[in-house]
Amino acid sequence: MFVVMRTGAGEAEVNGVKGLILAEGLTPFENAGADRTVIAVVGEIGKRREQLRARLEATPGVATVTAISKPYKLVSREFHPENTVIRVLDTAIGDGGLTVMAGPCSVESREQLFETVDHVATHGATIIRGGAFKPRTSPYSFQGLGVEGLRYLAEARQRTGLPVITEVMDTNQVDIVAEYADILQIGTRNMQNFSLLLACGRAGRPVMLKRGFGATIEEWLMAAEYIASAGNSQIIMCERGIRTFETTTRNTMDLTAVPLLHHLTHLPVVVDPSHATGKRWLVKPLAIGGVAVGADGVMVEVHPRPEEALSDGEQSLTFALFDQMMAAIVGVHEHVRDLHGDLLPAATDPAKAAG
Amino acid sequence: MFVVMRTGAGEAEVNGVKGLILAEGLTPFENAGADRTVIAVVGEIGKRREQLRARLEATPGVATVTAISKPYKLVSREFHPENTVIRVLDTAIGDGGLTVMAGPCSVESREQLFETVDHVATHGATIIRGGAFKPRTSPYSFQGLGVEGLRYLAEARQRTGLPVITEVMDTNQVDIVAEYADILQIGTRNMQNFSLLLACGRAGRPVMLKRGFGATIEEWLMAAEYIASAGNSQIIMCERGIRTFETTTRNTMDLTAVPLLHHLTHLPVVVDPSHATGKRWLVKPLAIGGVAVGADGVMVEVHPRPEEALSDGEQSLTFALFDQMMAAIVGVHEHVRDLHGDLLPAATDPAKAAG
Amino acid sequence: MFVVMRTGAGEAEVNGVKGLILAEGLTPFENAGADRTVIAVVGEIGKRREQLRARLEATPGVATVTAISKPYKLVSREFHPENTVIRVLDTAIGDGGLTVMAGPCSVESREQLFETVDHVATHGATIIRGGAFKPRTSPYSFQGLGVEGLRYLAEARQRTGLPVITEVMDTNQVDIVAEYADILQIGTRNMQNFSLLLACGRAGRPVMLKRGFGATIEEWLMAAEYIASAGNSQIIMCERGIRTFETTTRNTMDLTAVPLLHHLTHLPVVVDPSHATGKRWLVKPLAIGGVAVGADGVMVEVHPRPEEALSDGEQSLTFALFDQMMAAIVGVHEHVRDLHGDLLPAATDPAKAAG
Amino acid sequence: MFVVMRTGAGEAEVNGVKGLILAEGLTPFENAGADRTVIAVVGEIGKRREQLRARLEATPGVATVTAISKPYKLVSREFHPENTVIRVLDTAIGDGGLTVMAGPCSVESREQLFETVDHVATHGATIIRGGAFKPRTSPYSFQGLGVEGLRYLAEARQRTGLPVITEVMDTNQVDIVAEYADILQIGTRNMQNFSLLLACGRAGRPVMLKRGFGATIEEWLMAAEYIASAGNSQIIMCERGIRTFETTTRNTMDLTAVPLLHHLTHLPVVVDPSHATGKRWLVKPLAIGGVAVGADGVMVEVHPRPEEALSDGEQSLTFALFDQMMAAIVGVHEHVRDLHGDLLPAATDPAKAAG
Repeated sequence: MFVVMRTGAGEAEVNGVKGLILAEGLTPFENAGADRTVIAVVGEIGKRREQLRARLEATPGVATVTAISKPYKLVSREFHPENTVIRVLDTAIGDGGLTVMAGPCSVESREQLFETVDHVATHGATIIRGGAFKPRTSPYSFQGLGVEGLRYLAEARQRTGLPVITEVMDTNQVDIVAEYADILQIGTRNMQNFSLLLACGRAGRPVMLKRGFGATIEEWLMAAEYIASAGNSQIIMCERGIRTFETTTRNTMDLTAVPLLHHLTHLPVVVDPSHATGKRWLVKPLAIGGVAVGADGVMVEVHPRPEEALSDGEQSLTFALFDQMMAAIVGVHEHVRDLHGDLLPAATDPAKAAG
Repeated sequence: MFVVMRTGAGEAEVNGVKGLILAEGLTPFENAGADRTVIAVVGEIGKRREQLRARLEATPGVATVTAISKPYKLVSREFHPENTVIRVLDTAIGDGGLTVMAGPCSVESREQLFETVDHVATHGATIIRGGAFKPRTSPYSFQGLGVEGLRYLAEARQRTGLPVITEVMDTNQVDIVAEYADILQIGTRNMQNFSLLLACGRAGRPVMLKRGFGATIEEWLMAAEYIASAGNSQIIMCERGIRTFETTTRNTMDLTAVPLLHHLTHLPVVVDPSHATGKRWLVKPLAIGGVAVGADGVMVEVHPRPEEALSDGEQSLTFALFDQMMAAIVGVHEHVRDLHGDLLPAATDPAKAAG
Repeated sequence: MFVVMRTGAGEAEVNGVKGLILAEGLTPFENAGADRTVIAVVGEIGKRREQLRARLEATPGVATVTAISKPYKLVSREFHPENTVIRVLDTAIGDGGLTVMAGPCSVESREQLFETVDHVATHGATIIRGGAFKPRTSPYSFQGLGVEGLRYLAEARQRTGLPVITEVMDTNQVDIVAEYADILQIGTRNMQNFSLLLACGRAGRPVMLKRGFGATIEEWLMAAEYIASAGNSQIIMCERGIRTFETTTRNTMDLTAVPLLHHLTHLPVVVDPSHATGKRWLVKPLAIGGVAVGADGVMVEVHPRPEEALSDGEQSLTFALFDQMMAAIVGVHEHVRDLHGDLLPAATDPAKAAG
Repeated sequence: MFVVMRTGAGEAEVNGVKGLILAEGLTPFENAGADRTVIAVVGEIGKRREQLRARLEATPGVATVTAISKPYKLVSREFHPENTVIRVLDTAIGDGGLTVMAGPCSVESREQLFETVDHVATHGATIIRGGAFKPRTSPYSFQGLGVEGLRYLAEARQRTGLPVITEVMDTNQVDIVAEYADILQIGTRNMQNFSLLLACGRAGRPVMLKRGFGATIEEWLMAAEYIASAGNSQIIMCERGIRTFETTTRNTMDLTAVPLLHHLTHLPVVVDPSHATGKRWLVKPLAIGGVAVGADGVMVEVHPRPEEALSDGEQSLTFALFDQMMAAIVGVHEHVRDLHGDLLPAATDPAKAAG
């Protein structure tokens, strides 16, 4: 349920509405938009819906009370029509600029990390990526350097001035990762690790949520809703390919997800062509494709010598390939930036959007 | 097996090789490239491989005899490194220009068809599409106007000067469709209707082969090989979405297929965002995406009044939306045309390409 | 729309209803059940629904007129509550007995076929299978013996007294296949070859319809509806595995399809564990599984020397494995035959069945 | 790498081998079979493989040293040819008997739980199931009673004498769940939550590992390998359906997984037809199917009044349906128990098994 306040409604009136919601054992979430304030009512409303609606409509300052047509609420465009912009250090994600997250799959050593970030930071990257805790299919594969890797990442931030994103695999790691990194990444295998979603939602850092390789768009948005319901709506959605019958590529990149998400949610969307394709020579064309359909950025894996990488060498870009990709996507981003404005709900029929 | 002739080998030498192949009960296919001629040997070679190879290598004019690493041969880049360009009336597909196939899903009446083609032909379409024989999930749905529809399409060609593409559903329809249409379309449900593939291969018209919604890239190329093996390599590949667990869109558009195909085959590739997404407001962004990843063209459904369409109204563009899409993709095509040259085999490692 | 006649309604009354339907340009299909006659009205009814219903209700002999909740009508349990039993020579499919279709993947020679059928016919098979026209992914693979293979199959029928089933791949082959074989098989790649479905519907022979490897249950039933709408409801449904992300087996066998189909349709259902698993050692356990969930029979591939087979050798049973499988499934069939009676619509809630 | 000891090799010789392995920084895992002892060497062996092999072969008591053909080692049949039998209280899983895990989806109240367990415990269940911590797609759905629910489950064990299984969703919950429950369940969404797998591997309780709905058989076995690598090989594999394009059922139950797993691993396998189908009327036929293909047991959801259930009411069995299912599967289990002995590696060709 959304409570839309009248234009010009004051703090007292907003607090009156919130108080009524809290008194019902429900939780109010406020979006103070440019025009007017909207308050989402979340929790199990059940049978009291009609009665509650009537009481809210009768509360001073309330314009209308509307049902929410989607199961996700705080992350929906209906609640928050403006794009969410996430600001970290001097970088912004979702403000119309092009975000480029680049770095090695795994932090393998201080030297390997620094060699990589020195290159990408001076050739267009806006955020440094690198895995310290690595989710691996086999318990016998390299599992990452752990806290040592985090420390190197913090040094890399110092060195480059760029914010750092790294994966957190377990609730017990959230505090330590949040201490060293600027953005927490939740990996594809943990997209529905609900305990982790809530813990990241409380960590006070922006969160990048990768799509589960077997997850629908709606489940992905519901996972984001978990994070938002814990008080954090600084969420970046990352499309990284889904699992299908096709085996030529590692996954099937679902580029339709980008305009769909821009329509359904206010959160920024980036694409990861490295994991989606699994082949380095396909990273550039799919990064171009992602930017062309309107993605706010890309995440790619880069390694000084991919053939020596401890993980995902097949899909890591060399420095030369990274530079080629950058040259291509900067131009494409510039070219397409005014082409996708009509995807916002005002310009389409929301009822049919997910129909 | 490929027989690569020496540079400067003459007709007599080429005929000598062909004769040897025919005498073995196998079939030679010749690709006379700018540099040198390649002859593919197709058929069940089996145990005589080594002996045959030795005999071919000893034949006058032969430079080398190499194994073919892929199960498809005539459609592979290995056999035919140059892009195939298909010319129909005044239009070319695969020559670096942007092909736009547009028109109604079904030809519903002479008036509806003419109203549509008059618009699209004057707003950027290069080929007219329209269904006369319609494959429908239900036997009780509108099945198309049949031969009457074909006649209207032929009139539309007269009217616009543009070539016409339409679907052929059965071997018995190949002759009549080939009589009226310029390009034969094989639909997604018939991608492995091998009798139809062979019949279209013999019809003397270019063929557009839609990807089966459950088919891998390799199966799709093998289906194209059926057409080529019947003597026709004027084939256009059309990505139209595959079936996955995601239900928000009608299908999942596999844009990675575009650079993959450009790497693996010499045939032109177009994308069909109408069927891939099933929603008209997603057609423009995905058409942009398809062109951005290097597609040679797009195919879209357009209807004067989509809400009255007898089939696929939800995904048909209005005239206004068609014009918006055209404005977007012409610019994107211009912008990206030099970005994808490195996908050709010479620039990548073929061994890893499909690895 | 279904017109349910009163108990005891006579031929004149039934004809009156049919006449009214025909006069509307629609087609009546009659099911004369033990209790009462039901007439299905098929065709595009559109806006005249309410008016037509009123007129039918006022016609002598009519008890009620009801809407059909499913898109398939003639193949639905709602139209035809009793199981359809198909009788060919001395064999019945769907009568509660166990159907076993066995034989080689391809008819490779007269000797290979006879050696195989002599074994299976004396060890439990009730129907002989064998491919004369073979759909192959590659145009260069063995395509079957064609009409010569059909002749051998007809000889095999003479030899064993058992009916013969073989695949028809194209409308042009329907007549010749129907001349030699007792049951026409439509393969997985042709499940939505609508021209072929209609041609088989008119051929006067029972038809076995394999599920498309990418087809939903509903699309499969709609394909059967095509055959039925052409006047032939002697249809056997064959589950042969669907395509998923799992690659350990050739396909994923969907055994849930068996009880689902028994609930939704009156047609008999068999399972094909050879194609579903692609591995001979998995054929017996999955044949047991199929019979256990209520299948009316199984179809399996058998070869005297699988390692020499020209197609599908990996999944062909040896004679010894066939015998082991027979011993197992005969007992399981006997054991489970009274366990599944409650799947019929009377015993479940049809509204929830496919909900 | 597997070190196979000579028949009759003593403790000193086994310790000698283990010492050598430990000295290399690798981990030895011992399986003392009836005939002879096998020691698996796990860890990153890398380039020292040949040298290590030679040294091990020269160690007293060693018969042979063999490569392991699969990426999973401790859970493979190659390492441990005998079936693993798990004993909890008076119940055994994997000993040839029929395990039946039954109870409510969620523990909703003390009364609801006791009413349910009183019924199922006296009608054939061998293990009590019930969710205290519930993974829900929406953060606003009922999340389970938490520790209160665990206490009720412990009471239910007292009441019935049966062991209790319940889900653990996070590493932080492992201790408390292990305190109250007899078997820890890892849910489908957490199958690749590697931190949780390791934590459960160290908890000293048997673990039931549900298959991820998007996971291949090999990934599932690798997840089990994580648990085993932490020192716990008391693992039950639970097939609960995978995600495919088919939407009639909640998931597609992959019954082929049962014989495949019995071939590839020594761990017991149960099936969960409640989650696989999502429809209560399909639970009985698929439970029959699962038992028929050789499952060691079934897990089902039962509720006194499914229409009032706080979660998964559509798929919960009533008491009457549970009794019908029990009557059916007990007989089927008895009937098939001698039919699947030939799935063990000795009876098939392991090279082809997963080929």
